[in-house]
Amino acid sequence: MDFSIPTQTQEILDRVRQFVADELYPLERQAAGRTFRELVPRLHEKRDLVRRLGFWQPQIPRAHGGMGLGFLEHALVSEQLAYSPYGHYVFGAQAPDAGNMEILLEFGTPGQRQRWLQPLLAGTARSCFSMTEPDRPGSNPVWLETTAVQEGDQYVINGHKWFTTAADGAAFAIVMAVTNPDAPPHLRASQIIVPTDAAGFQLVRNIPCMGHAGDDWASHGEIVYDQVRVPVENRLGEEGAGFAIAQSRLGPGRIHHCMRWIGIAQRSLELMCQRAIARELAPGQPLADQQTVQNWIAESQAEITAARLMVLDAGWKIDHIGARAARVEISAIKFHAARVMLEVVDRAIQAHGALGVTDDTVLQYFYRHERSARIYDGPDEVHKRVVARQLLKRHGYRRR
Amino acid sequence: MDFSIPTQTQEILDRVRQFVADELYPLERQAAGRTFRELVPRLHEKRDLVRRLGFWQPQIPRAHGGMGLGFLEHALVSEQLAYSPYGHYVFGAQAPDAGNMEILLEFGTPGQRQRWLQPLLAGTARSCFSMTEPDRPGSNPVWLETTAVQEGDQYVINGHKWFTTAADGAAFAIVMAVTNPDAPPHLRASQIIVPTDAAGFQLVRNIPCMGHAGDDWASHGEIVYDQVRVPVENRLGEEGAGFAIAQSRLGPGRIHHCMRWIGIAQRSLELMCQRAIARELAPGQPLADQQTVQNWIAESQAEITAARLMVLDAGWKIDHIGARAARVEISAIKFHAARVMLEVVDRAIQAHGALGVTDDTVLQYFYRHERSARIYDGPDEVHKRVVARQLLKRHGYRRR
Amino acid sequence: MDFSIPTQTQEILDRVRQFVADELYPLERQAAGRTFRELVPRLHEKRDLVRRLGFWQPQIPRAHGGMGLGFLEHALVSEQLAYSPYGHYVFGAQAPDAGNMEILLEFGTPGQRQRWLQPLLAGTARSCFSMTEPDRPGSNPVWLETTAVQEGDQYVINGHKWFTTAADGAAFAIVMAVTNPDAPPHLRASQIIVPTDAAGFQLVRNIPCMGHAGDDWASHGEIVYDQVRVPVENRLGEEGAGFAIAQSRLGPGRIHHCMRWIGIAQRSLELMCQRAIARELAPGQPLADQQTVQNWIAESQAEITAARLMVLDAGWKIDHIGARAARVEISAIKFHAARVMLEVVDRAIQAHGALGVTDDTVLQYFYRHERSARIYDGPDEVHKRVVARQLLKRHGYRRR
Amino acid sequence: MDFSIPTQTQEILDRVRQFVADELYPLERQAAGRTFRELVPRLHEKRDLVRRLGFWQPQIPRAHGGMGLGFLEHALVSEQLAYSPYGHYVFGAQAPDAGNMEILLEFGTPGQRQRWLQPLLAGTARSCFSMTEPDRPGSNPVWLETTAVQEGDQYVINGHKWFTTAADGAAFAIVMAVTNPDAPPHLRASQIIVPTDAAGFQLVRNIPCMGHAGDDWASHGEIVYDQVRVPVENRLGEEGAGFAIAQSRLGPGRIHHCMRWIGIAQRSLELMCQRAIARELAPGQPLADQQTVQNWIAESQAEITAARLMVLDAGWKIDHIGARAARVEISAIKFHAARVMLEVVDRAIQAHGALGVTDDTVLQYFYRHERSARIYDGPDEVHKRVVARQLLKRHGYRRR
Repeated sequence: MDFSIPTQTQEILDRVRQFVADELYPLERQAAGRTFRELVPRLHEKRDLVRRLGFWQPQIPRAHGGMGLGFLEHALVSEQLAYSPYGHYVFGAQAPDAGNMEILLEFGTPGQRQRWLQPLLAGTARSCFSMTEPDRPGSNPVWLETTAVQEGDQYVINGHKWFTTAADGAAFAIVMAVTNPDAPPHLRASQIIVPTDAAGFQLVRNIPCMGHAGDDWASHGEIVYDQVRVPVENRLGEEGAGFAIAQSRLGPGRIHHCMRWIGIAQRSLELMCQRAIARELAPGQPLADQQTVQNWIAESQAEITAARLMVLDAGWKIDHIGARAARVEISAIKFHAARVMLEVVDRAIQAHGALGVTDDTVLQYFYRHERSARIYDGPDEVHKRVVARQLLKRHGYRRR
Repeated sequence: MDFSIPTQTQEILDRVRQFVADELYPLERQAAGRTFRELVPRLHEKRDLVRRLGFWQPQIPRAHGGMGLGFLEHALVSEQLAYSPYGHYVFGAQAPDAGNMEILLEFGTPGQRQRWLQPLLAGTARSCFSMTEPDRPGSNPVWLETTAVQEGDQYVINGHKWFTTAADGAAFAIVMAVTNPDAPPHLRASQIIVPTDAAGFQLVRNIPCMGHAGDDWASHGEIVYDQVRVPVENRLGEEGAGFAIAQSRLGPGRIHHCMRWIGIAQRSLELMCQRAIARELAPGQPLADQQTVQNWIAESQAEITAARLMVLDAGWKIDHIGARAARVEISAIKFHAARVMLEVVDRAIQAHGALGVTDDTVLQYFYRHERSARIYDGPDEVHKRVVARQLLKRHGYRRR
Repeated sequence: MDFSIPTQTQEILDRVRQFVADELYPLERQAAGRTFRELVPRLHEKRDLVRRLGFWQPQIPRAHGGMGLGFLEHALVSEQLAYSPYGHYVFGAQAPDAGNMEILLEFGTPGQRQRWLQPLLAGTARSCFSMTEPDRPGSNPVWLETTAVQEGDQYVINGHKWFTTAADGAAFAIVMAVTNPDAPPHLRASQIIVPTDAAGFQLVRNIPCMGHAGDDWASHGEIVYDQVRVPVENRLGEEGAGFAIAQSRLGPGRIHHCMRWIGIAQRSLELMCQRAIARELAPGQPLADQQTVQNWIAESQAEITAARLMVLDAGWKIDHIGARAARVEISAIKFHAARVMLEVVDRAIQAHGALGVTDDTVLQYFYRHERSARIYDGPDEVHKRVVARQLLKRHGYRRR
Repeated sequence: MDFSIPTQTQEILDRVRQFVADELYPLERQAAGRTFRELVPRLHEKRDLVRRLGFWQPQIPRAHGGMGLGFLEHALVSEQLAYSPYGHYVFGAQAPDAGNMEILLEFGTPGQRQRWLQPLLAGTARSCFSMTEPDRPGSNPVWLETTAVQEGDQYVINGHKWFTTAADGAAFAIVMAVTNPDAPPHLRASQIIVPTDAAGFQLVRNIPCMGHAGDDWASHGEIVYDQVRVPVENRLGEEGAGFAIAQSRLGPGRIHHCMRWIGIAQRSLELMCQRAIARELAPGQPLADQQTVQNWIAESQAEITAARLMVLDAGWKIDHIGARAARVEISAIKFHAARVMLEVVDRAIQAHGALGVTDDTVLQYFYRHERSARIYDGPDEVHKRVVARQLLKRHGYRRR
């Protein structure tokens, strides 16, 4: 056992943290009341800085222009990036592009990589991942309505998707559609690349969430696929391999989500401490002396530390024993880390008083945007079931 | 002891509930993406309907054109109004006007009533209450920076306020300002009526909260009072009576806030039940059959029932033994009911899955807007201290 | 609505409270390390005092020698009695005798009353209620193994029961046994009076619970019924009416249990306040000044107040609209009040520090003995299901 | 970073676990209703087995007859031992002897080691540590009443202690007493060895806790030191070094406590899983299929995993950067791990229904005995303050 972080990695983390604090925190207040599109030029200036520092796309192999960090190293960087809502975007590690890049790197043909991956690596285009359906629960991912029927050398895609994050302005979507309706449930769907300018691809709306429709990268699209035709060569991997591909990204993707949440919790705790010191309840009586606030700080620190180690341990296991063997861990961190994050954010808001609900701090952004952490990617309830069933199995339980 | 609601009151409640469901629920989705100002014409049409039904201003004496309901009756109506974010506005019972009307009715001179109260009763003007200051904690309400210095027959007011709810478009503000800086803390401030068109009254901004600046009634103003001059006759009550007046409205105002929260919790529970029935996790397997969702429903029902009775009991005590004797109850309901509401809203969102964070239901509105319930009007922490100190006192404790 | 307690009732409550504090609190420390049987003589001396004050058996009609209190009045008295673990016993209102007396009063024949009820009313004998079975979950009360087969004018009873409270030293048990195995589930069992000296009645052991087997009234018996023969006339009510009779006592019994828990919580809060005042963390720095302890006191006060009103409201509803119509309330108070009690007890222990786990206060007794409140009489989970299903039904849900 | 456990260590852990399950679990039910003294012969038989396996005193250097495990290795063994309440005792690693052995090894003179340490290493004598005082809060350890006044070459000790664990039957106590009342608070006390047969050493009582006075090793003594005289050479280390010595053992001792709690939580989770599988709610409907129970299992698994890593990380830090630098971690694990353990135990009891409160499982023992984990060694509240103050300090806070 060794809980230390190598000096070299620590140096990267320190520099990333400094960059995020110096360059990205100031954007937060500028963002208030602006569309994301209005922010993009400034974000791309920051991207140039990131490239100059050699930090562009930490998760991507050097051969493809990234930093080539190891899996856990990137997880630690991801934590630092999450201190700002713009961190991942500015470093070229933002969802859903990061996941799509990984899929294309692992499962893409040379032709697919050339056409669809290159612009993502360069940061000149964006993409989206189109899986969730309004009439089908995310807790049952094999139950899909969208179909892709092969006609000649084309797929004809019909379906209704939503929460296709960042569809607005994306160059293409990777669509999960049923190609083999008669196969066993996990072998029914395929992942197919659909350019967003294909006929029949209709971005119905950016779904208003928590009071905002959002725009550009910062949006969740509702999409109708109405007789959309794409060449069969746009399919990723074998026909029916859609879930297998999705599964293969699940473990690593989970770690990055969770480290992002840990980063958000850390930032919130930082803000809570700063506020406790700065705010006086009466002359000479800082908030920091209130025992209740001290309890919040201490409990947050303990819960973040514990959750963080749990996520790193799960990541280490994925790396060393594989995602399948780490199934319990991968589900456990999902519901546990999300809860810890949301509780810390909530405490930080309370410690800020009225200021906490204003856009003058980033806390309300975390409060609104990250509530969905307990829902997307499988709600808490699904992951608890997974963990429980695995444990019961280890104790000899067989479902009837 | 009698826990029954008189038949006549129950009839009113049923009719109000029906009205809210039929006329106001449909407005919720129309509101998404619109400013409040854009909604106002529709809301005023609904007000006309309310007047025709004889439900206008339930809390106002008949002599002044209201329904003349008793205190607890109005509390029960308030619960029903809260099922929709527009209920109180449409029935003419919205904060801060409702509170200001009560102050003017109780402490206003005939002239003040004529000039400032009449338009509020008629619904032709709005008002605001300007107390909270950015650099002074709400937990210490006697520590104010804003001053009103008498010069001749005028007050000259200087100060910086925020969270002056609904200042945007208001005809006047009731401002809390220090008039007697050398008096004991609770006798330093007065309440003074300031027309918003007075020279030096600057609405700096509608404070962006939870991602929205809001507008019109649905906003919280930051205001600078810069050498604002008003006639001395604009003062409400005696000089130095500002806190006494505020205190006198605190108990009743608390009941209405809390019953509003109970109504919000009830609506959220209603939505949770409806969703549980409508949503299937797999064919023939409704969400309602999930034990976790059943737990949420049952716990919400129990907590709402308990909190609701606690609020009604506190209201009954204010009515029968007076607000001073009911101090413990008035503080206890503040933190208890707010917590219950927020937990129920949170569970309802979780039960809705992805839909729960969209603007397609009202839940996300409650989630964002009502987080401040644990902060305004004294944060949880202050009210817990009040309750504890009173109880300790009853056990013989004297602070040193 | 009227939340007041009649003056006359309040006087009774005050006198009962005083009696409990003066006469029963001192017994608590004497009880440490003693068997219950050793305490009995002292408890019976106290019973004499109670009789002299006219407080004997508050729940029993005057015609039968009790105080003849109304249902809610007795609930309020029950709260006061619960401040001491000996309150109910000393006032002749202890489970399971109180429930058995009510069953005999309502369903007993004159002969049954004469023989079995009279000694309970006089306090010269005790009884027990034998329902729970080790191999059958309490959450499914219609699934029983114990049978009573009629042979001639006798029932032959065979079965295995446990948690037959107070069997040790009881004169008789009321046994729930299947008499009609082919009837629909709710019509299968009957309640039959079995004298404990009947051949084949074997008290296997007093079940050690939380480290103590207990004895006499303060015990839970494991009993084997091995070919026990009793006359058919020992049956209470019609054959197959066992559940109907049990159900009829459920609502009122629930109120008394819950008010007992409220009383326990109140006593614990009282002890917490007293300790906070008496204990110093440093010279001149009482525990009462710690904000965390103040939070505990305030939250406990709020939660007890809310839960208490909820129980009283449920009791009022049983009285005025009947137990069937109050089904949701009767289940909701079970899990809600038990949770509140246990949390308050836990906080009180924490506030006492090391003293809190010693037998020098009654808190550890509550902690150990009342943990089962969340289990007996249907665990939390069952009652949550009942509440949820009823609510879902009101929203139109029909189970498939 | 490396989260793996070396194969060799894992083998030891597996064998220890097997031993505990095979040899010690069966003792649990035998223990019910017996004094500890009655169990001792059986426990000492098990000790012989342990010695034969080469597992005696895992924490003690080989030169002194132990296994000579490294710090973290022993922490992992300690987790396994805690699956049974008898694990530590049987392996010779039980508090308070383990701590006293460490003190004597590190600070004892050759003479002290010869006389007092040897019998502990051999398992032929027991000892106790006498620090806590009834009239002084454990949260303020430098505020002690007990004094040791030097007269000639003797100390004369006077004072009143309690919660001197295992005093009953111990050969000696290490007593914390004020020797230098005029020194700064942290330099006032010394640790002095007092044989329990010294004149004036009065074991007043084994303090009844949670209904049991306990006896022998399984007891907490209340002790009066009345003019007890011991030679000055019985002092450990320098005069006034009492706290420094206590501090030096605090970090390592904390890890062992916390790993013990983790083991208890693991055992409870194991029992919960086994019960869920074995128990049927209706024919063919095991408890394991209940979603609520699955939630408990999953949440327990997640919380235990997170807390466990947190404790191991703190241990690793003590080993690598020192206890002083790991102060935040050492305090954070105290309140966090204790809470997690108690919640898991509570859930396991609930999953067992009525069985859960009986002595037929070990859960009720954990429930009663381990409640004090949140109190001894500094209550939660003290450790939260420590964590908060350190964090605030890192953010620049200086107390006034």
